[in-house]
Amino acid sequence: MIVTRPVVILGGASGVIVAEALYDLSQAGCGVECGGYLNDALPTGTSIGDQKVLGPFEAWSDLPAETLFISVLHKAKEMPQRMDRIERLGIPDSRWAIVRHPAATVARDTQIGPGSYIGPNAVVMPGTVIGRHVALRPGCSVSHDNALGDFVFAGPNVTLNGNCRVGAGAHIAPNAAIREETEIGELSVVGMGSIVLNDVPARSMVAGNPARVIGRYDGAGMWGPIDG
Amino acid sequence: MIVTRPVVILGGASGVIVAEALYDLSQAGCGVECGGYLNDALPTGTSIGDQKVLGPFEAWSDLPAETLFISVLHKAKEMPQRMDRIERLGIPDSRWAIVRHPAATVARDTQIGPGSYIGPNAVVMPGTVIGRHVALRPGCSVSHDNALGDFVFAGPNVTLNGNCRVGAGAHIAPNAAIREETEIGELSVVGMGSIVLNDVPARSMVAGNPARVIGRYDGAGMWGPIDG
Amino acid sequence: MIVTRPVVILGGASGVIVAEALYDLSQAGCGVECGGYLNDALPTGTSIGDQKVLGPFEAWSDLPAETLFISVLHKAKEMPQRMDRIERLGIPDSRWAIVRHPAATVARDTQIGPGSYIGPNAVVMPGTVIGRHVALRPGCSVSHDNALGDFVFAGPNVTLNGNCRVGAGAHIAPNAAIREETEIGELSVVGMGSIVLNDVPARSMVAGNPARVIGRYDGAGMWGPIDG
Repeated sequence: MIVTRPVVILGGASGVIVAEALYDLSQAGCGVECGGYLNDALPTGTSIGDQKVLGPFEAWSDLPAETLFISVLHKAKEMPQRMDRIERLGIPDSRWAIVRHPAATVARDTQIGPGSYIGPNAVVMPGTVIGRHVALRPGCSVSHDNALGDFVFAGPNVTLNGNCRVGAGAHIAPNAAIREETEIGELSVVGMGSIVLNDVPARSMVAGNPARVIGRYDGAGMWGPIDG
Repeated sequence: MIVTRPVVILGGASGVIVAEALYDLSQAGCGVECGGYLNDALPTGTSIGDQKVLGPFEAWSDLPAETLFISVLHKAKEMPQRMDRIERLGIPDSRWAIVRHPAATVARDTQIGPGSYIGPNAVVMPGTVIGRHVALRPGCSVSHDNALGDFVFAGPNVTLNGNCRVGAGAHIAPNAAIREETEIGELSVVGMGSIVLNDVPARSMVAGNPARVIGRYDGAGMWGPIDG
Repeated sequence: MIVTRPVVILGGASGVIVAEALYDLSQAGCGVECGGYLNDALPTGTSIGDQKVLGPFEAWSDLPAETLFISVLHKAKEMPQRMDRIERLGIPDSRWAIVRHPAATVARDTQIGPGSYIGPNAVVMPGTVIGRHVALRPGCSVSHDNALGDFVFAGPNVTLNGNCRVGAGAHIAPNAAIREETEIGELSVVGMGSIVLNDVPARSMVAGNPARVIGRYDGAGMWGPIDG
């Protein structure tokens, strides 16, 4: 008997990206299917795509024990609060799904933490360690021997060259590229299309070609210009 | 009995991109195959790739009723004339093919207008509406809840984030990226590698990282510098 | 009887990218498998990924006659020496493998020289000629009617538009895009994310959006600023 486990998505509109991957996985006979959403803002029963909101985040513990979870809460500049929100729910690692689209190409030896999503046409080369709650969007290319911390986001068509290290909660926006052997500090934001040639300090925002620091996180949840 | 319908390409050299997709679809048993070209400049019988020119555009009405069509006439800055040329042929929507490469990943609920092409490794996320005669080239990533007008072109490795609107005839060149919730006006041109953070007015050209307006369409088919 | 031929990789850490493709090809029943490495710096028996170093480059001639080879020695600014090193080994063309990942989309009529690698989700459109020892990394998009010389490297998410010519030993770094009908001179380096609108002279380095020449190769193996 094949058991199909429902995967419930914590989050809102962008969850349709993961829901679609779950549909494609179910069609491929991978033993998972989308089981709906948990959402703190929308009333229970609200539709998101072809699925329903089942309740707020805290309702996770009311769901059947076979239910798995994944969150879609990555947002540049808001990760400290969002990481904290997810972690304080106390969902055990064994209940977080890994959603890897069937059209992703992921090296055999890749370590992937619970709660992570790898989209269609994303590529992960050997020797790479991917933390918990990471999102690699479509067409993202992660070369060999990368280390991605928890809650890292890499957007569509991003390239990480070999031997990079990306700190927890860092956000790499679409079409950015990172030189080999570069370190992106925790909670940093790499703007769309940034061409990163040097290490990025923690809690900093970079943008441009070549990328330069344009803002810093002040610790109170606010961002300002580098000289502001 | 499986019926294979010929798809005839209106255009020239870049048609080989669509002809190759038709070959891949025929190999996958999708019931279509390339039926040749219509071209206004080349003599009947001229070869384009492994196919022949059957006549000028107007010869479409002489072809058997099962013949379908697709055009490959997207060109930045020349779309007003080209859109008009296509529309005045009077080919009914039921005769325009949708050519979706088997290696594209397109969400189930995507609406795709007749005459559109979606290339290998292109990705379209849920909630997206794609107009008529749209071209999404290889590796192009269209996120959730986008609306793309008729005759839009998005080049290879372009990223459209969520909730964007792209007007009819707009041209987004390769490796450009568009921030979420951005509007690209009709007939606008987004240059290669543009990083678009703000709305783009209609009939404008933007370029750079970040993208800035560098030209406007003057209505007589000419483009000039913004202050020219 | 199906014969599986071992493919031995000349090079080091980045060879895991090709080794992974060989694994995927072996799983797809393509008649090849990774046979280990040749490496001039590491002792025989050293592990690279799940494979072993068999000896230095010159040991190629001691390996069984069914052994094929591929090199992973592309490096910007060092190609003159590396091309020379490979060519002087005297390995006949019949012994160099073509490693084309099963998730690449390559037009039927593409000519590919011996020793070349085409990665997952790379796309090659019709009418294109690819030289010997070329590397097209994941998500690289090569449009129609391109001509790529020997030892060309195109990184992840690079776009080459139609009708480009790329000289031998040129290096196009990740996420760069090249306008149609552009010539990239031999041994030139196109920096990460470069948006190339004009021809690039031989032995030059360009970078930026739009790309500008920022360095030249002086013939003694050194690179300097354009006005240095």
